[in-house]
Amino acid sequence: MRRGEEMRERVRALLPTIAANAGKAEADRRVPDENIRLLKAAGFTRALQPLAYGGLELSPEQYCPVVVDIAGACASTAWVAGLLAQHAHGLALMSKDVQDEVWREPDTLVSSSVAPINEAVPVPGGVRLSGRFGWSSGCDHAQWACLGFRMPVAEMGGMMLPFYALVPRGDYAIVDDWHVAGLCGTGSKTLEVRDAFVPDHRIDSIIAMNTGASKGFGLHDGGIYRAAFVPYFSFGFSAVAVGVARRFLEVYRDKIAGRARAYTGARVAESAPAYMRLAEASHMVRAAYATLSQDWREIASRSRSGRLPSPAELAMWRTNQAYATRTAIEAVNILFSGSGGSAWFSHNEMQRLWRDANMAGAHAYSDYDVATQRLGRDLLGLDPDMAIY
Amino acid sequence: MRRGEEMRERVRALLPTIAANAGKAEADRRVPDENIRLLKAAGFTRALQPLAYGGLELSPEQYCPVVVDIAGACASTAWVAGLLAQHAHGLALMSKDVQDEVWREPDTLVSSSVAPINEAVPVPGGVRLSGRFGWSSGCDHAQWACLGFRMPVAEMGGMMLPFYALVPRGDYAIVDDWHVAGLCGTGSKTLEVRDAFVPDHRIDSIIAMNTGASKGFGLHDGGIYRAAFVPYFSFGFSAVAVGVARRFLEVYRDKIAGRARAYTGARVAESAPAYMRLAEASHMVRAAYATLSQDWREIASRSRSGRLPSPAELAMWRTNQAYATRTAIEAVNILFSGSGGSAWFSHNEMQRLWRDANMAGAHAYSDYDVATQRLGRDLLGLDPDMAIY
Amino acid sequence: MRRGEEMRERVRALLPTIAANAGKAEADRRVPDENIRLLKAAGFTRALQPLAYGGLELSPEQYCPVVVDIAGACASTAWVAGLLAQHAHGLALMSKDVQDEVWREPDTLVSSSVAPINEAVPVPGGVRLSGRFGWSSGCDHAQWACLGFRMPVAEMGGMMLPFYALVPRGDYAIVDDWHVAGLCGTGSKTLEVRDAFVPDHRIDSIIAMNTGASKGFGLHDGGIYRAAFVPYFSFGFSAVAVGVARRFLEVYRDKIAGRARAYTGARVAESAPAYMRLAEASHMVRAAYATLSQDWREIASRSRSGRLPSPAELAMWRTNQAYATRTAIEAVNILFSGSGGSAWFSHNEMQRLWRDANMAGAHAYSDYDVATQRLGRDLLGLDPDMAIY
Amino acid sequence: MRRGEEMRERVRALLPTIAANAGKAEADRRVPDENIRLLKAAGFTRALQPLAYGGLELSPEQYCPVVVDIAGACASTAWVAGLLAQHAHGLALMSKDVQDEVWREPDTLVSSSVAPINEAVPVPGGVRLSGRFGWSSGCDHAQWACLGFRMPVAEMGGMMLPFYALVPRGDYAIVDDWHVAGLCGTGSKTLEVRDAFVPDHRIDSIIAMNTGASKGFGLHDGGIYRAAFVPYFSFGFSAVAVGVARRFLEVYRDKIAGRARAYTGARVAESAPAYMRLAEASHMVRAAYATLSQDWREIASRSRSGRLPSPAELAMWRTNQAYATRTAIEAVNILFSGSGGSAWFSHNEMQRLWRDANMAGAHAYSDYDVATQRLGRDLLGLDPDMAIY
Repeated sequence: MRRGEEMRERVRALLPTIAANAGKAEADRRVPDENIRLLKAAGFTRALQPLAYGGLELSPEQYCPVVVDIAGACASTAWVAGLLAQHAHGLALMSKDVQDEVWREPDTLVSSSVAPINEAVPVPGGVRLSGRFGWSSGCDHAQWACLGFRMPVAEMGGMMLPFYALVPRGDYAIVDDWHVAGLCGTGSKTLEVRDAFVPDHRIDSIIAMNTGASKGFGLHDGGIYRAAFVPYFSFGFSAVAVGVARRFLEVYRDKIAGRARAYTGARVAESAPAYMRLAEASHMVRAAYATLSQDWREIASRSRSGRLPSPAELAMWRTNQAYATRTAIEAVNILFSGSGGSAWFSHNEMQRLWRDANMAGAHAYSDYDVATQRLGRDLLGLDPDMAIY
Repeated sequence: MRRGEEMRERVRALLPTIAANAGKAEADRRVPDENIRLLKAAGFTRALQPLAYGGLELSPEQYCPVVVDIAGACASTAWVAGLLAQHAHGLALMSKDVQDEVWREPDTLVSSSVAPINEAVPVPGGVRLSGRFGWSSGCDHAQWACLGFRMPVAEMGGMMLPFYALVPRGDYAIVDDWHVAGLCGTGSKTLEVRDAFVPDHRIDSIIAMNTGASKGFGLHDGGIYRAAFVPYFSFGFSAVAVGVARRFLEVYRDKIAGRARAYTGARVAESAPAYMRLAEASHMVRAAYATLSQDWREIASRSRSGRLPSPAELAMWRTNQAYATRTAIEAVNILFSGSGGSAWFSHNEMQRLWRDANMAGAHAYSDYDVATQRLGRDLLGLDPDMAIY
Repeated sequence: MRRGEEMRERVRALLPTIAANAGKAEADRRVPDENIRLLKAAGFTRALQPLAYGGLELSPEQYCPVVVDIAGACASTAWVAGLLAQHAHGLALMSKDVQDEVWREPDTLVSSSVAPINEAVPVPGGVRLSGRFGWSSGCDHAQWACLGFRMPVAEMGGMMLPFYALVPRGDYAIVDDWHVAGLCGTGSKTLEVRDAFVPDHRIDSIIAMNTGASKGFGLHDGGIYRAAFVPYFSFGFSAVAVGVARRFLEVYRDKIAGRARAYTGARVAESAPAYMRLAEASHMVRAAYATLSQDWREIASRSRSGRLPSPAELAMWRTNQAYATRTAIEAVNILFSGSGGSAWFSHNEMQRLWRDANMAGAHAYSDYDVATQRLGRDLLGLDPDMAIY
Repeated sequence: MRRGEEMRERVRALLPTIAANAGKAEADRRVPDENIRLLKAAGFTRALQPLAYGGLELSPEQYCPVVVDIAGACASTAWVAGLLAQHAHGLALMSKDVQDEVWREPDTLVSSSVAPINEAVPVPGGVRLSGRFGWSSGCDHAQWACLGFRMPVAEMGGMMLPFYALVPRGDYAIVDDWHVAGLCGTGSKTLEVRDAFVPDHRIDSIIAMNTGASKGFGLHDGGIYRAAFVPYFSFGFSAVAVGVARRFLEVYRDKIAGRARAYTGARVAESAPAYMRLAEASHMVRAAYATLSQDWREIASRSRSGRLPSPAELAMWRTNQAYATRTAIEAVNILFSGSGGSAWFSHNEMQRLWRDANMAGAHAYSDYDVATQRLGRDLLGLDPDMAIY
C-alpha cells in the first residue's frame, strides 16, 4: 500500500488549492486548468496507466481512497480527474497500436461518452462514425475521446453489438451545452462527430473488454489488467459520492459545534436532534465506505488472481456502488435538511455539496432501481434483462 | 365555498402566465411585476383582508387551495403572493389607526421579517428601531414591512418581549443579498433600518396577537379575525410545498408515460419501479393535502366559533404543517431521484421544482426537528421549551 | 352523521369489555363469543345491512370510524366484526332469494374466503364446489360463508371467470389451522368443502358485483348499494391498522409520560428522541386517518350519486388503503422500536399491538408492492396487469 | 486467522442440529442443553478465555463471524452462547483469585445482569448484596453470575460507583419470568439475590475494567486482554442481528425463487418488487457486516497494540453496533413486509426470524436513540451525558 499512501499524500497537498478553485469550477462549468495541471504533475491521472507507458498501476484499494479525498475538496474535479485516470485502464485493454498512439505522450488524457447509442457504418479498415455523444465529463482537458457505438457484426449474422472507438480531438467538436444544477464543474458536454473514419485498431468490443477477449488483453503484466473493464471504469462514481458526504460531515459538525458552544446548557439540550443527525450520518458514511472498501479489495484480489470475475461478482460490485452512493446521498440529505435556510445561500459550501452529492446519484451507474433489478435477477438466477444493464 | 371557487377559477386563468414567468423569477431573483399585478387584479392579495378595507375575508379552506394552485406554476410566486396576502390577516388584528394608514389604498402590500431578533429602544410615543431584518420575501413589491423586534416592557419589570412594528417603505433600505439555490424568485432580501421612529399605533405585541389581546382584536366581524395570528400567517408555507409536489407528479408522469410508450412490452415491465415511484408519491401528496385540509377546516371552524384555539390545537396545526411539508418534499425526492441525469439540466422544470420543494422545507416553520420537539413536549404535558419555538 | 355518532357511542360503551377480552382472543385464537354478542346487540354487525332486512345502512364515513375505535381495544375483534358487517354489503348486491335465505334471521353472520382459487364444476341449476378455502376470519361466528371460486362460462367460450358462492354452515368444515404470530384472535381458519351443491341463486359474478350488474343490484334504495363491491368489502382493513396505531400512541405516551415525570430536567432533555417519536407518529396517524377519511367521503358521495366509481377512483381507493395501512404500521414501528426491551414481555400490550399492526399489513389488500404497481399502471394509462389485482 | 477458520468449521458442523432445535428453544424459553453441550465441546464457549485457563484467546475478527453463523441457525442460541463466551473476557480482567475459583473447571459458564441498578452494602472483606437482577440470558446454563451493582466508595467521599460481582449459583435463585415475543429461547430470566456476602476478590470496578485498572489487568499476555471490557462484552449483539438477517435473505430468496419459477414470464415481471427487495436487503446486510468487520479489526488491532482505546473509538464501536443492528433489522423488515400472510404462520421460520431480529434491536446496547446521542455528543466534544450511557 506504500505507493498508494504516497499518492494520497501528494494529492492531499493539492486539496487546499482544489477546494479554493471549487467556485471557479462551478462558474466556468469545467474543471479549472490549474487543478488538472496539478493532478497530472502529482501523477494522479496516470494512476491506473501501465508502467510501460509511464503509469503507476495502482490497485483499486490504493487508488479509490484518493478519489474520495479529492471529492471532499471539489466533487467535479474528483469526478473528472477520476474518469480521466480510470479511462487509462480501459485503454490498456485495447490494441497495442492505439495505446502507442495515445500514450506517445504519457500525460495524454481521454474523456468518454460510453453509452452505445449511435450507430457506425462498417467500411474497409474501420468504421465511419457520426452523431452526438453526450455526457463527456472533462472533455475540455482531453486529447482523445472513447466513444460508445453500435454496429452490425457480420460474423454474428449482422447482429448489432456495442463497441468503443478512440477518436482524436480533431475529429469531434465540443458542444457547450453543460448547463445543469449539480456537478456543474464536470463540463460533461456533448461531443459532435461528423462522419469520422475510425480505423480498426482504435476499436474494441465492449463485450470483449469485459470478458478478457479484447485486443490488448494480456499485454501488461501488472496486477490490474487481467480484469474486466466495467469495475475499473466505474468505481470512481461512488467514491465521489462518499467523498462529498465525508466533507459534509465536517462542514456540518463545524456549524453546529459553533452554535452549541454559543449557548447555554438548555440550548445544548435543544440541539439533540442536530447532533443525532450528525451521528447517524457518520454511521452511514462509515458503512458506505466500509462496503466500498470491501469491493475495492475484492476487485483488486480478483485482478491479481488473473481470473476474471464471475457474473455474481460483477453484479454485486456494479450494484453495491449504487447502494453506497445512495447511502452517502441519504447522509448528506439528513444533514442538509437539518441545516436551515442559511445553508441555501450561494456562498455556503453546503448547498453545493448537496447538489453535487445528489447529482452523483443521477448517473446511470448510480441508478438504484436499475441496481436492485439487476442484482435481484442475478440472485434469483433469472436471465439478465438487457434493458436494465 | 362559492367565493373560494371563484377565486380559484380567476387565479387558474393566470397560471399559464405565471408558469411562463417562472424562469424570469429565478433569473431576476424576485417575482416578476406582471405576476403581482395579475394577482392583485384577481383580488388574491386581498383574500384575507377585511371587507371594511376592500378585502374578501376568505376562510382558510377557501384560500389555501389557491396557494397550492399557484405553487404548481411558480413556487416563488406562490410563496410571495401568499405571504403578502397572509400579512393582511395579521394587520387586521393591529390598531385601527395603522390599518387606516396602510389600507388607505386597499391594494397596498406588506412584506415582513418576523423573527424578533433586533432590539428597539422605547422612546416617548413609540420606539426607535435599527438593524438588519432578513428573509423579507416579496419586499420589492411591498410598501410597508412588518418587522419583529424585542424591547423591555416596563410593566413587566423590564422583561424583553417580542413585538411587531409596521414600517413604511421610506424607513428602510432593501439590501440585494438574495443569492440562493432554491425559491430564488422570492427575493427574500434583507431590510436595513437605521434609527427609525415607530409610533405606538404601528406596534403590537406578538403575544397579544396570538391571544386575542392585540389592539385591533374584535374590530372586524368576519369569521376569520377572532383568531390567533400564527396559523394564518404560516399556512401558506406547507401549501407551497404541496403545490410543488403536485406539479412534480404531473411532470414526472408525462416523462415516464412518454418513455413507456416508446418501448416494447419488455420495456414497460422494466419501468415497474418508475411507475411504482409515481404511485407512492401520489399517495404521499394526497395524504399531505388531506391532513392539511383537515387543519384548514379546523382553523376555519375555530375562528368562526369565536373562541381562540387551545395550545394543543396550535401545537398540532403549527407542527403538522412541517409534517405535510416534509411529506411533500419526500414525494418530490422520490420522483426526482428516479428521473435520471437529464432532469438536472437547467431547462428542465424538474430541477427547479426539486430545489424549490426542498427549500420550502428549510424555513423555520418547516423545521421538522423543531416541530417534533414542540408537539412531543405538548403531548407529554411538558412546559414548552421556548428555545424551540 | 347522527346515526353514525349513535353507533360510535353504543360501541364505545363496549370497548372496556372488548379490551379486557383481548388476551382471551389471542389465547383462544378466535374472537370471544361475548364480543360478538355485544356487537350484535349494539347493531354493529348490521351497520351495512339493508333496512329491508333489519339493517342500518350506515354510510362509509359513519361506519369506518367505529371500526377504528374497536381496533383500539382489540384488533382481532375489529377485523372480524368489521368483515362480518362488511359482508352484508356484498350480500345486498346478490339475488333477492339468497338475501331472503340468509337474513331470515337478521343477525345471521357471513364469513368469507374471497380469493377465487378453487374451481367449481357447473351442473344443472348450480355448481358443485370442493376445496380448501383459507383465511376465513371469524368463521366460528358465522352461519354462512361467501366463497370465491372460478368456473368456465359457456357464454364466454368457456373462459374461466371468478364468482362468489354463499354456502351454509352445514356444507363446510372448519379446519383448526390458525396458528400465527399476529391478529391471532381473528380465527381466520380454513374452510373445507367437499363436493357441495350450490344453487344458482346463491352465486354471483365478482365482476358483476363490481360493475353494477349483479343479481341484486338496484334492489335496495339506500345510498350505499349503488356501488361497487370491493371498496365496501375492504375498507375495514386499513381502519383496523389505523385504530391499532392510535391505541399505540396512547400506550406509548402513558409510558414515557410516566418516565419523564419521574426524573429531573436533565432526564427530560434526554428523552427528546422519545417524545419526538411520539410527535412524528402522531402526525403520521393523523395523516393516515385524514387520507382514509377522504376516501370514505368519496366512496359515500359516489354511492349516493348513483353512479359507479371510475377505474381511477377504484384504483386510488384500493391502493390508498395500503398506503394508509403502511403509514399506520410505520408509526407503530417508530414507537415500538423506541420502547425498549420491556415492551416485549407477553403481558405488555405494546407487543400485541406491534404484531397486530404488522400483520394487518400482510393482507393481500394491504400489499404495498401490489398497490404501487396497480396505481402506477393506472396513472400511466397502461393496461391493468391482472396478475397483480 | 487459521484458528478462527477452524472454529468456524467446527461450529458449522453443528448448525443443522442447532437449527433443528430452534423450535424447542422457543417452546422451552431457554437454549436446549444439547446446543450448549455441543458448543462447549467445540470450544466455542472458551473462545475468549485465557490460554492459562484452557481458553483459545481468539481475536474479535476470528470470533465474531462465528456468532453470525450461529445466529443463522438459532438467534437465541447465538445470543446466549455468545454472551457466555464473551463474559470470559471480562472475567480475565478481574482478580486472579476469582479466575482461579471460576475456572477450576475450564468449561464453567458465567451469565450476567450488568446494569448497575441495585445497591450493595459494604461490609468488612466485601459487600452484602440483595435484589432482583433482570435479563440474565442463558442463566440456566451458568454456574456463576456477573452482577452489576452500585455502592458508596469511601475513598471518593461516599460517591456511588458501579461494580461487578461474581456470584456463585448457590447464592441466587432463578425466577422463571421470561415470557416474551422475541428471542424467546434466550431464557433471560431474573436472578434473585437475598443478602449474599460477596468477598472483595470477586468484585471489580466497572470503570476500572474499561480503563486498564482492574485487578487482573495485565495478567494474561494474549493480544485481547490489554483492552477495555465493553467492546468485548457487547460485540455479540450486533453479530446476532446480522446473522439473523443473513438467514432471512436465504429463506426469502428460496421462497420467491420457487414462486418465480412456477410462473410465466409475465409473472416474473410482476415479481420485480419482490426481487428488488431481495437486492436492497442484500446490500444492506453486506454493508452492516462490512462496517462491523471494520470495528472487529480495529478492536483487535487496538488490543494487540497494548494501548487502550480512545473515548472516540469507544463511542464509535459502541454506537456503530446499534447502527449495524438497525440496518440488519431494516433489511429483515423489508423482506418480511414483502412476504405476505403465509410468512406469519407459526411453522414458518420467517416470523421467528422477524421477531428475533427486532428483539435484538430492543437491547439497551442496540438503542439507536441512545447511540446517536452518545456519538453525537462525542463528535461535538460535549461532555458525555451520563443518563444516556
